[in-house]
Formats: sequence, C-alpha cells, structure tokens
Amino acid sequence: MSVEASELRIEQERLMEELRMLATFSQEGVASGGGTAVTRVVFTEPDQVARAYVAELARDAELSVRVDAVGNTFFRWSGSDETLAAVGTGSHIDAIPNAGMYDGTVGVLGGLEAIRALQRSGFTPRRSIELILFTSEEPTRFGLGCLGSRMMSGILSAEAASGLRDAGGGSLEEARKHAGFGGELGEVRLGAGAYTSFVELHIEQGPVLEKERLPIGVVTKIAAPASLRMVVQGEGGHAGAMLMPVRRDALAAAAEIVLAAEAAALGTGAEDTVATVGMCEVFPGAVNSVPSRVGLSLDVRDTDPERRDAVLQRIAAACEETARRRRVTVETERVNADRPASCSDAVVAAIEKACAAEGLEAHRMVSRAYHDTLFMAQLAEVGMIFIPCRAGVSHRPDEYAAPEDIARGVRVLARTLAELSER
Amino acid sequence: MSVEASELRIEQERLMEELRMLATFSQEGVASGGGTAVTRVVFTEPDQVARAYVAELARDAELSVRVDAVGNTFFRWSGSDETLAAVGTGSHIDAIPNAGMYDGTVGVLGGLEAIRALQRSGFTPRRSIELILFTSEEPTRFGLGCLGSRMMSGILSAEAASGLRDAGGGSLEEARKHAGFGGELGEVRLGAGAYTSFVELHIEQGPVLEKERLPIGVVTKIAAPASLRMVVQGEGGHAGAMLMPVRRDALAAAAEIVLAAEAAALGTGAEDTVATVGMCEVFPGAVNSVPSRVGLSLDVRDTDPERRDAVLQRIAAACEETARRRRVTVETERVNADRPASCSDAVVAAIEKACAAEGLEAHRMVSRAYHDTLFMAQLAEVGMIFIPCRAGVSHRPDEYAAPEDIARGVRVLARTLAELSER
Repeated sequence: MSVEASELRIEQERLMEELRMLATFSQEGVASGGGTAVTRVVFTEPDQVARAYVAELARDAELSVRVDAVGNTFFRWSGSDETLAAVGTGSHIDAIPNAGMYDGTVGVLGGLEAIRALQRSGFTPRRSIELILFTSEEPTRFGLGCLGSRMMSGILSAEAASGLRDAGGGSLEEARKHAGFGGELGEVRLGAGAYTSFVELHIEQGPVLEKERLPIGVVTKIAAPASLRMVVQGEGGHAGAMLMPVRRDALAAAAEIVLAAEAAALGTGAEDTVATVGMCEVFPGAVNSVPSRVGLSLDVRDTDPERRDAVLQRIAAACEETARRRRVTVETERVNADRPASCSDAVVAAIEKACAAEGLEAHRMVSRAYHDTLFMAQLAEVGMIFIPCRAGVSHRPDEYAAPEDIARGVRVLARTLAELSER
Repeated sequence: MSVEASELRIEQERLMEELRMLATFSQEGVASGGGTAVTRVVFTEPDQVARAYVAELARDAELSVRVDAVGNTFFRWSGSDETLAAVGTGSHIDAIPNAGMYDGTVGVLGGLEAIRALQRSGFTPRRSIELILFTSEEPTRFGLGCLGSRMMSGILSAEAASGLRDAGGGSLEEARKHAGFGGELGEVRLGAGAYTSFVELHIEQGPVLEKERLPIGVVTKIAAPASLRMVVQGEGGHAGAMLMPVRRDALAAAAEIVLAAEAAALGTGAEDTVATVGMCEVFPGAVNSVPSRVGLSLDVRDTDPERRDAVLQRIAAACEETARRRRVTVETERVNADRPASCSDAVVAAIEKACAAEGLEAHRMVSRAYHDTLFMAQLAEVGMIFIPCRAGVSHRPDEYAAPEDIARGVRVLARTLAELSER
C-alpha cells in the first residue's frame, strides 16, 4: 500500500509546540545569544522529564513502548507482518550545556509526527516502524558519544560501559539504575536481524543547505570522530618566585598542544578535517600559581579515517616534542576512534524517491557531525535526512531551523519510512 | 633596654606544634606531592577557625586585640611610652587552594613567638610592638592580593573594596559582615603615624638561600606585581560541523596569549621578570563544542616597574594582533599594577645588626613574591626577613622550611623588633 502525496498532512504547528515544550525541560533555562538555551544531560531530572513527555506523546499515538537497560526507548508501530525486521527512525533528546532546541529533538519528535502523518493517511505498514530515542548521544556526562547506539551495535561492550564514570565519579551503572533503567546491560546489544533499515532526520549543523537554498540533504557518509583525553603534568610553584628558565608550566605546554591540533587539521588542506580542544582544566587554577597540571579534551574528525589518523599522529608528535622541550609529561587516553559510516544505496534511493514525490531537490552530502546512525550502520542499512539550519549554527542557544523546513523534512521521512516498510 | 643573646630563648617545638595545628584548619586536607595540603580562603570556615586560634594564642601572651572592619587583626604588646608610634610585624594566614603550611603563617606565629621570647627575656619595649594578621594576602577569593594591607595603606579605597566580588557574585561587603567584621570600611585606612616601622618574617619562596646555604635573607626590594583579567570572546559551534577556516576559536586565541606572555617575560633577559597565566576557564567547556569564550588571569612581576610595564605592553600588542588575525575580541581589565617597594636602610641595618648578634650571615636580596610589606611601605619604614625553604617551593603542599631555620628567623625578628622599639 503506497502513500499518495495528497494524503500526507503534517501538523506543523503541533510539532513546533511539542519541540518548544521539550525545550523547557532544561537544567539552565538561560537564554544567551538569542534563542533558547537548553542543557539536558543524560539521566538528570530534565532528561527524565523529557523522556516521560516523549513517551506520553508516543502512547497517544498508540505506539507500544520498550525500554532497554541503558534507557534506549523503542516506540513501535506494528506492521502487518510482525515476522519481518522493522524499519527504524529516531535520534536523541539529550543536549550539551547551553545548547539549542533542534539538535536530535527534530529527529525524535519529527519521527513521531512522520508516524502520526502516516497513520492519519490511512497507511498500514508491512514491516513495523520503530521510533528510537537513543540514550546519551552527547558525550557530556560519560565522555563517550552515542552511548545508547554504541551499545546496541555491540561496539561498546556492557562491561566497558558499566565502567564508565562521570566527572563526579559516579558510574554509568549506578546512574542508569538510579534513573530507573534496570535489567542487564548485556541485553542492550541487538542482533543483526532487528532492523532492515534505519533513517535519521536531523538538522544539518552546517551551512551548506541554507547557503545553497536547498531544502533537503541526503547523507552519503558520516565523518569518523576520534576523541582523546590528555593530561599535561608539569611543576607548580609561586608565580612570583619561580623564575622563568626553570619553569615546567603545564598551561604553556597545553597552549602549544592546542595550537598544534589546530595546525594539524588545517594542514591536511581538506575541508572535512576538523580538530577541536573543547575543554582545558587548569590545576591548581590560581592567579598567582604556576599551573602544575592541565587536562585537555581533543576531538578530531574526518570523512577519511586514514587522513584523520594521520592528523592524530601529527598531534601526538607535537605533544612529544613539547613534552621533551618543556620537561613535562603528556598522557593521552584514546576515548574512542570510530570508523566512518557509509549510507546504503537503497536507503539513499528511497529518500531521493521521497524527495521527488514531494517535488523537493535532494542534495547528496557528507555529515561532519556524528550521529547514532553511525552505529546503527552496524545493524542495518542506514540513511540520514538533513534539513537546513540557520548559518550552520548548532550546539548553541541560537541554533534554529525554520518550521517549514522541519515540516518538509518530516514529509520526506514519512514517505521514506513508508517506502522502506513495504520492501 | 637591650636584649642579651643569652636571654633570648625560642620555644622551637611549641612554635612548630602551633604551625602544625594551624595547618589543620583547611578546606581540603588532601596531601598531594608530599607535605600537608592547606586551602584556607579568606572568610571561609577554616579561615575563621584559624583566626580564632591565633587570637587565643595572642591572648595567652597577654596581647590586647583590635580588629578592623575588614578583619585585619592587631595584637598589641604595649610599650612603656604609648605616645610613640608602634613597631609592627606580622603576615597572613590565608592560603590559596592546595598550598603549603609555611607561607604567611611563619610570619604570624613566628612573630608571636618573637614577642613571647622578648617577654620571657624580661625585655620591656619602649614603643609598643604590634603583631598584625592581615586579611586576604592571597587574591584567591576577590581577585586582589594584599586586601587588608592595601586598604590600610589607602591604595585601595573603601568604595573600591566594597565593590569587589568573588566568583559566586558575593561582595566583599557581604562576606566580611557575614564573617563578623562590622564597622565602616573607611576606617580601615591608617594614618602615617600609626607605625614607625614594620618588619615581616617570611619563607623565601625562592631557591637562593637554600642553594647558597645562607640562613637569613635581608630584603632590600619587593618586586612590583601587575595582575590582569582577560576575556577572549570568539564564536562557539559544533566541533564536527564548524569548518576550520571559518572558526573563531576562543581557546586557540587564548593559547597564543599564554605563549606570548611567556615569551614577553623571557624576552627581557632579566632574571627578575616573570609572567604567569594561572587560570584558564573555557566556555562552554564541552568535548564537542568549539570554545566561544575563555577567561584568563595574567600576573606579571618585576623589580623594575618600567621593565614590567614594557612586558605588559608587549603582551597587549600580542593580544591585539591575535584578536585581529583570529577575529576574536580580547577584553583586558587591570586588577592591580602596584609599584615596587624599597626597604628602609634603617630597618635593613637593624636586621643586619640582629643577624650579627646571632652570629648569622645576612644576605641582601630581592623579594620576587609580594607581601603585605609592599603596602606597609606606604605607612612606615619597612624590612623583611627571609628564611630558606626547600627547593624554593611555595604555594604547594610540599612547601617546607626546617624548624631550625624558622627558629633562627624568629630570633633575628625578635632582636630586630627590640632594636626598633628602642629608637
């Protein structure tokens, strides 16, 4: 059974109201730089309340609910043939400190609206369609992104996951139980037959679509992120009494590493290479003390994993050189170094067919941000639908996507899900 | 009435016990890197308890007590001629996070022991001798060092002081009242006639005395500190999606400033020039966010104020160049930029005479750390007595001064106070 264009009605205003409501569940509702500032760290009160809100909406749409041991939540619209692997869609609702209101949420609430639109059209899926709310796509709390999908794919083992700790020393194991997610972490991993395909709707988080006035991006590849933690250990002392030539200043050494990371990324000459030091924590952190220790985070991404690893090697060489010259030590821990994912030709074709049915131009592109789809690619054929966001801004309160663009993305997603559920 | 060498008895073990007891009043009693870690920030519970402890010891020595509106505390041993200006000694008991147990405290408890030793010897001073416990020599809480002596000297006005705020937004005005120090801040300032002279006993906080096996340093000059706060404002964004060429990364800009400060200090070629960035706070501070804002502290010191100001100018020029090239802004606030102080020939001579009486070699030297004496120099003739500390280490838990060295310093201080009180 196919869906006629005329039958697909997106309730744009209702969806926007739901997005705005979701944005109110935030740790610090301080607007800054325009827009709505959202902070929703996994398993905190706002995350819990937001999960409950999404579950309530899903129940209203008569979807059945399954929750796994780490809080990944599966809202199922049963198809006519329950023996077939399901079609998945979804994203995340957790948000880094002082983020915006569209990252992830558009894929969750937009995914729900796509299902509701298909329900309203009278469509009945052959394969079940599942909306997935992934736990902790953001690495804020446990230092590792895509926690839920990483565990579903088996790339993160239950044993490794239960050992993860947050800055306060609390373990993932305690936190997820405290948040009410019981059962064995080992059961989070899914078999290869759970999904036939998975499609994620997301804001672009880059400037391309807006700049070129394109309504829909069809992702062909997702960049490969590597994340490192570094500790620079030097020698502290009194800022007045410790003479310059004998210093082993950990912050001066860290400054060189920050600049070396930037230079290494710029040095590839490739647009797709990026390197970021997003955290820099100085100990003891007093005006009049020479820093003895500095903690840094390093995030390097590329669509080409070999090029990314070459950048990591250049940064490591710079760290060694700095350590030797400044008589400090630099300890590096690789938090993760994932492989990039390619989207499936069949899913890309389904998205492009949906765009054509809607009379929308489909623009093939790369995702430089990483998403739960990166890990779902281990389990199923995957694809992503991007919609424009203002000035490419994301992870900031002024992150913005126009309601019409969101609605267009939902229409394309709905058609894609319908198409994939029939295969 | 003079003091005979044989009459002066220092109760070294008692003094060491008092120092160890004082070290227990600390926010985080975590030993790290050897030694006792002390954190005692002004007006916190440990500071309050430590003040009470010192006051109790002073009352046992029958000293009268006066406390001013900002908590500076004056313990007075009345002289035979109360019409004469007093001789002062003293130091501070507040400690930066994770500091040691000798910085400041040796001047307070050692000053008290010097007075007790003079009392035991039967000496009666002509001029009164006052032991001063200065409030907040460390800039930890309100960003400005030597708060108490700075206000006593009038260099910091009551109005400017009451406007100071800590990181939590609390004002000095509220904090000092909450700590029980009432009255008008305007009354903290002293007239020029309050003291004829002031002598501070302190650990060197540098390596010279230990290295050259010298028991006593006689300070001739105190280096001039300048302290700045900087805010680098760039543009945040998603660490994956924001391409390198368009970035305005606040931390990369801050890294250049850290290195420029170091290079400017090294560039003078003078041993006495030091520059330190001790704090670096990144916003939003997430692994996967490009830093939008960074706060830095900068501390530049020199014995030569012109050379110091030239270093500040070089750093300012580097900030401008970085700001222009990286399209960020750098706002700089000068917290303080004090003039260096010279010690008085008469006080230096009195200290050297005391050393001679004790059979100790007196080594003239510069203080690169700054002290309350810097501001007392506005009110009286000043001098400082340095004792060796291990490896020149200070502002760290492994800060250490040998009991015999402390006792020697107290002997020299006692004789110096006796001499000055007779003038």
